Amino acid sequence: MTKQQLADKTKQIEETIYQYLPKAEGEQKPVIEAMNYSVLAGGKRLRPMLMKEVFDMFGGEGKVIEPFMTAIEMIHTYSLVHDDLPAMDNDEYRRGKKTTWAQFDECTAILAGDGLLNFAFETALQAETENNPYLVKALRILAKKAGIYGMIGGQTADIEAEKPESNVNGEKLLFIHEHKTAALIQASMMIGAVLAGASDEEITKIEKCAYNIGIAFQIQDDILDVTSTLEVLGKPIGSDEKNNKKTYVSIYGLEKSKEDVKRLSEEAIAILASFGKRNLFLEELVEQLINREK
Amino acid sequence: MTKQQLADKTKQIEETIYQYLPKAEGEQKPVIEAMNYSVLAGGKRLRPMLMKEVFDMFGGEGKVIEPFMTAIEMIHTYSLVHDDLPAMDNDEYRRGKKTTWAQFDECTAILAGDGLLNFAFETALQAETENNPYLVKALRILAKKAGIYGMIGGQTADIEAEKPESNVNGEKLLFIHEHKTAALIQASMMIGAVLAGASDEEITKIEKCAYNIGIAFQIQDDILDVTSTLEVLGKPIGSDEKNNKKTYVSIYGLEKSKEDVKRLSEEAIAILASFGKRNLFLEELVEQLINREK
Repeated sequence: MTKQQLADKTKQIEETIYQYLPKAEGEQKPVIEAMNYSVLAGGKRLRPMLMKEVFDMFGGEGKVIEPFMTAIEMIHTYSLVHDDLPAMDNDEYRRGKKTTWAQFDECTAILAGDGLLNFAFETALQAETENNPYLVKALRILAKKAGIYGMIGGQTADIEAEKPESNVNGEKLLFIHEHKTAALIQASMMIGAVLAGASDEEITKIEKCAYNIGIAFQIQDDILDVTSTLEVLGKPIGSDEKNNKKTYVSIYGLEKSKEDVKRLSEEAIAILASFGKRNLFLEELVEQLINREK
Repeated sequence: MTKQQLADKTKQIEETIYQYLPKAEGEQKPVIEAMNYSVLAGGKRLRPMLMKEVFDMFGGEGKVIEPFMTAIEMIHTYSLVHDDLPAMDNDEYRRGKKTTWAQFDECTAILAGDGLLNFAFETALQAETENNPYLVKALRILAKKAGIYGMIGGQTADIEAEKPESNVNGEKLLFIHEHKTAALIQASMMIGAVLAGASDEEITKIEKCAYNIGIAFQIQDDILDVTSTLEVLGKPIGSDEKNNKKTYVSIYGLEKSKEDVKRLSEEAIAILASFGKRNLFLEELVEQLINREK
């Protein structure tokens, strides 16, 4: 896949999502402005892209997927808005732009995060489908993978892991990666499958595939922090070691980390290739995502 | 209705809700402890009580209402947890107990609020019903009334109204009361009706009735701040005037405020009494709620 192809796909995703953003008007204007600022601030749009590609692979048709693409991006965005708050990571910049609390204020950023999480469900609930069981099934996946048994659970464990007294072993690190990162990727891909009418067996395979993608992505992150350069990565390397942060590499070593990324990504692609209809763009996307150099 | 009857009903509601709380275990333990602390901290359980009574009035049967009773209380609770944060109202105590951020820390309170909002949808989505259209309809009401076009919108307007440059008139004050307070009462009562299979016409009447209850409740709040005593109210009176806060009484005067409470509550009770089957406990509850002395 060329850079242009990926850029075109990303643009399509953004055009779809932006249609579902609330209008910044009325008494709610301050919170809606902050919500939309956060969503429009950019990003790879990876989750809605994976969702749409899996939906296409299983022969999904119509607009039912669009509100869910928007919902998953809103949930991802709210998690960043709240993570960046002074009481959490205290980050003033993200992707070269001011974070929501730095651009507006803390109070507005808390409300905007709440607004995005709530509006994600509100939007997904508007999905037009005559097949309500699919809708409810997709919503249940969304809620579970975003909540305390998914992303919020991962965020909780991550915060605990940063405390000086914590003892992070491989098992705990995997819990964090599985919940903080893989859970929303699982939700994205599973919902794409559910709304296209995939079977339970296929959905279970997609869940496993998305797990591998999420974990491999995070291990690759840890690897790049050791092996890359400032020039390639665009941010300082060695930051994990400097911050005394336990990573997959510091626990298992570089060699095993590389082997695991290879194994996890090969398994993920093998699962994708095992379905009746293949989606070569999706396979390439996963390949690039995991084996990226920055 | 006697005090004992109300206390018994409240206890029943709490026993129901507590069954649906997540177990504080695993890596998620810190966030779940804070979530449950917040829910267990008490309160009148007004919203789930109204929901259940309307459900009963329309002849609703079975446990389908329970997850929604839990969900509405969780949403109400998360809104308090986030409102109490230092960046918002900066309150250390509520109902004589430490607020969530004061008991744990800011970071945990932000996550616990997010966790409660998400878990509210997760719980409601577990409601067992063979009639999926009712489930989706109830979820849509929940999401809308809790979000930017409901409670979060009201909270946004309230924060704006507290800024020195704001000019709060009667219309703006009504917007705040309608969204910040009435919206969740509407959700509670409408969902009770929807899940009992009420008609669209009945649901519209219930929405109007709940609007009246919410607004009258808030006006009564403003009246008591002027007319009550420290002994009866259990908190200092005159605090609105002291804080230069525009209230219904300061805008419309005491007499019109009292008239409006009377009119709104009579209308609300008349609507409740207009349905085929009456629920006298509900009518008395509304009567007491609005005409309370503290």
